Amino acid sequence: MSATVYGLGVGPGDPELLTLKALRILRAAPVIAYPAPDIGDSFARMIVAPHLPGGQQEIAIRMPLGDGQFPKAEIYDGAADEIVAHVAAGRDVAVLCEGDPFFYGSFLYLYERLVDRCALQVVPGVSSLMACAGAAGLPIARRNETLTVVPAPLPDDALRARLVGAEALAIIKVGRHLGRVRRVLADCARLDGACLVERATLASQRIAALRDVGGDTAPYFSMVLVPSARS
Amino acid sequence: MSATVYGLGVGPGDPELLTLKALRILRAAPVIAYPAPDIGDSFARMIVAPHLPGGQQEIAIRMPLGDGQFPKAEIYDGAADEIVAHVAAGRDVAVLCEGDPFFYGSFLYLYERLVDRCALQVVPGVSSLMACAGAAGLPIARRNETLTVVPAPLPDDALRARLVGAEALAIIKVGRHLGRVRRVLADCARLDGACLVERATLASQRIAALRDVGGDTAPYFSMVLVPSARS
Repeated sequence: MSATVYGLGVGPGDPELLTLKALRILRAAPVIAYPAPDIGDSFARMIVAPHLPGGQQEIAIRMPLGDGQFPKAEIYDGAADEIVAHVAAGRDVAVLCEGDPFFYGSFLYLYERLVDRCALQVVPGVSSLMACAGAAGLPIARRNETLTVVPAPLPDDALRARLVGAEALAIIKVGRHLGRVRRVLADCARLDGACLVERATLASQRIAALRDVGGDTAPYFSMVLVPSARS
Repeated sequence: MSATVYGLGVGPGDPELLTLKALRILRAAPVIAYPAPDIGDSFARMIVAPHLPGGQQEIAIRMPLGDGQFPKAEIYDGAADEIVAHVAAGRDVAVLCEGDPFFYGSFLYLYERLVDRCALQVVPGVSSLMACAGAAGLPIARRNETLTVVPAPLPDDALRARLVGAEALAIIKVGRHLGRVRRVLADCARLDGACLVERATLASQRIAALRDVGGDTAPYFSMVLVPSARS
């Protein structure tokens, strides 16, 4: 009875951006768990689908989650109990995490419920931050620049406060906040060079200068990169 | 004659944290290039050594580089010319990059010399930021927290300015700045919970509360993580 829960970073979307370690653990685990929308497919599971050996037990953690809302505690409580029951029965559980488990991941809600109850290992993954930068050909940060990563759902004032004086910038969770992000960047004279990256490394990937993008919403998986003004 | 230069993220140290994509490109490339110290082994090459097929041409970009100094332009000029010559002759070149190529990587010195001269593709990798967090069991950032990544070589005043009001923090390039970093964090009341991670994912990995670490220097590959005070 020495089973382990793995927080498995599965990368930003391209199944080839899985690490060798994640692939090994994924294939060997008798149980996999993953976040999923209320209805429909799990993005994390879609990423690893080409690699699944078949015959694994699956736990879909279904979450009715709108943009900007935080998830329901009881759903994670239930999923944690289910995972702990597998571990107690000696079965390893691989929890699939889009990008990296510890970088703004929904895995964190499970982590805090599991860390004191079972053996747990985090396998780092390629984050969307690195994937977006690589796709756009925009270095994230260099030399002794400071990098600030700011979630777009923050109120305008908080966004602005974090942008003033920032060097390299990444604005994550853009989604329905696209219009606000564009306006606040313009207010702070940081719209020049700002780049919107949607669905990095997927076939539907889109990269554009934020200045040229119309509308007030972007896909949930999108990010704005703003190189340092001093570069 | 449509050869490509690949900026290949090879991850933080564990050879198993290479991505499937990086492995494929690494194995197929007739030429590999990598940063190396003036004398001795290249860390980037050591990471991929178990995966090398043999028979590849190798370009070691040897740099006499002390902590805190920036490298000599003529060495990168020469390496870029050598790489461009291979590409012109139809040979792909895989440039090995520790962690991720665009996250404070020395690859950026090559990138700016190559991007207008040949086809170039960046393959994102697992960054030391994610590897250190996973190893230490310390989430980097969650929900709508802002993350600030600060290079330790900045002067005390600049370090302090970036720490004041910061939420989640990662201080990179710690090396010989360990003592200063400890002092400035204490000044800003952020020493509690600060964690030093050395050589993440390698056999020699060390993780300790910064408060308990003596001395004024850490290895070159080390980072201090400071969770958000509000977590």
